[in-house]
Amino acid sequence: MTKRRIRLNLEYLGTRYAGWQWQDNAVSIQQVVEEALGKITSLKSRVTASGRTDAGVHALSQPAHADVETRMSDGEMVKAMNALLPDDVVVKEVVTVADDWSARFSAKEKTYIYTILNRERPSVFEHGRVWHIKKALDIDVMRDAARALVGEHDFTSFRSAGCAAKNPVRTITKLNIDRDDDTIELTFTGSGFLKQMVRNIVGTLVEAGRGKIEPDDVSTILGERDRTKAGPCAPPDGLCLVDVVYEDN
Amino acid sequence: MTKRRIRLNLEYLGTRYAGWQWQDNAVSIQQVVEEALGKITSLKSRVTASGRTDAGVHALSQPAHADVETRMSDGEMVKAMNALLPDDVVVKEVVTVADDWSARFSAKEKTYIYTILNRERPSVFEHGRVWHIKKALDIDVMRDAARALVGEHDFTSFRSAGCAAKNPVRTITKLNIDRDDDTIELTFTGSGFLKQMVRNIVGTLVEAGRGKIEPDDVSTILGERDRTKAGPCAPPDGLCLVDVVYEDN
Repeated sequence: MTKRRIRLNLEYLGTRYAGWQWQDNAVSIQQVVEEALGKITSLKSRVTASGRTDAGVHALSQPAHADVETRMSDGEMVKAMNALLPDDVVVKEVVTVADDWSARFSAKEKTYIYTILNRERPSVFEHGRVWHIKKALDIDVMRDAARALVGEHDFTSFRSAGCAAKNPVRTITKLNIDRDDDTIELTFTGSGFLKQMVRNIVGTLVEAGRGKIEPDDVSTILGERDRTKAGPCAPPDGLCLVDVVYEDN
Repeated sequence: MTKRRIRLNLEYLGTRYAGWQWQDNAVSIQQVVEEALGKITSLKSRVTASGRTDAGVHALSQPAHADVETRMSDGEMVKAMNALLPDDVVVKEVVTVADDWSARFSAKEKTYIYTILNRERPSVFEHGRVWHIKKALDIDVMRDAARALVGEHDFTSFRSAGCAAKNPVRTITKLNIDRDDDTIELTFTGSGFLKQMVRNIVGTLVEAGRGKIEPDDVSTILGERDRTKAGPCAPPDGLCLVDVVYEDN
């Protein structure tokens, strides 16, 4: 048995977890994935994700990599891990990759979808998976407000106080806002996102959709590079990492 | 304030509950609805549903009625109840109805949908809401097998041992089976259903779809009027009450 590097594609419901990363006093996605992988293989490394998701945030597709020693094929690892993982974490795929492939550093583009349920009554089926906002939001105003955010900007005003990234410049290549009946989806695609950047932007766009700020205010907020100027952080429930693109795919 | 009868339309996720009906040692949907209604009105009756759903079974639309005394309008009751109910039970509508209207006895037709996720890997988003079956099911065979069940029959072979109904004859007006990618939906419409009848039928149709019984066996099972002849009871997770039709709507 020789050591090999695998790429895992994970799906999870973040509700019960303290986020991706190991925590001292709470269960993380990383912990349950490493524990399952450690039971079926000789795990020779951390399991490293494309990026950390916060507590309560979901993933339809979260790539990760790990170094393992095992006689199992990639497909056998998928089945064995899913047999051991809790119901809210699933391995969709395992693929053997080059030893220097990194889920984190080889990532070129990420897409998140933030979902808002915009109607008076809540939904039992969507609870924990959407931000429920009763007051009608004007999505035309939200689209106007979003325009200033597309492109390369210093997103200091939209990063969390605890964000450790040295460079606050990021590029949003797409920010679409669509409504289907009572459901509003905000789709964010970009090279990468600062800690809580998507949720802080959603919180600010919702302020615009509620009429509390003007669409033009967003570009002022962006220019001020001051977190206290932006709107509140949207709850994690509505956020889902849906796609990560790599150079090799 | 005079007493008035209201029709409630409820949505719930049955996962955490012991079913519709009050239980001594477990929390039921009926209990949480009566408790919420009792806090905002003077509740003068039980809350009676169109029918009892079993533990773990969901409802997109479960009509119920109750007699209340309150100064609140129907719309105010919806808001006040949703403010008090747990996240997995929602009141969609309250309408004042005639004093003799009964959610149970005025019901003319009910529709249930049973959902199967038919693929190797589970889904974190659908967990608790589908029956996950890994082996590929042949839905053409399932459709063949289902044909014998449509119409008026004695469904003794498909009722639960604990079913208290005196008359085991029921009419299934529609039993459609549709596949969309990995998801199979079985739609049942009928005048009414015996205890666990839908789940026992689903369990039997899945046996046919797996090739364990022949489609023709279903009509034999029906004729034997013996519960031990049918397939196993499908898990409650996949079952959802979606519509109840009344004479007056």
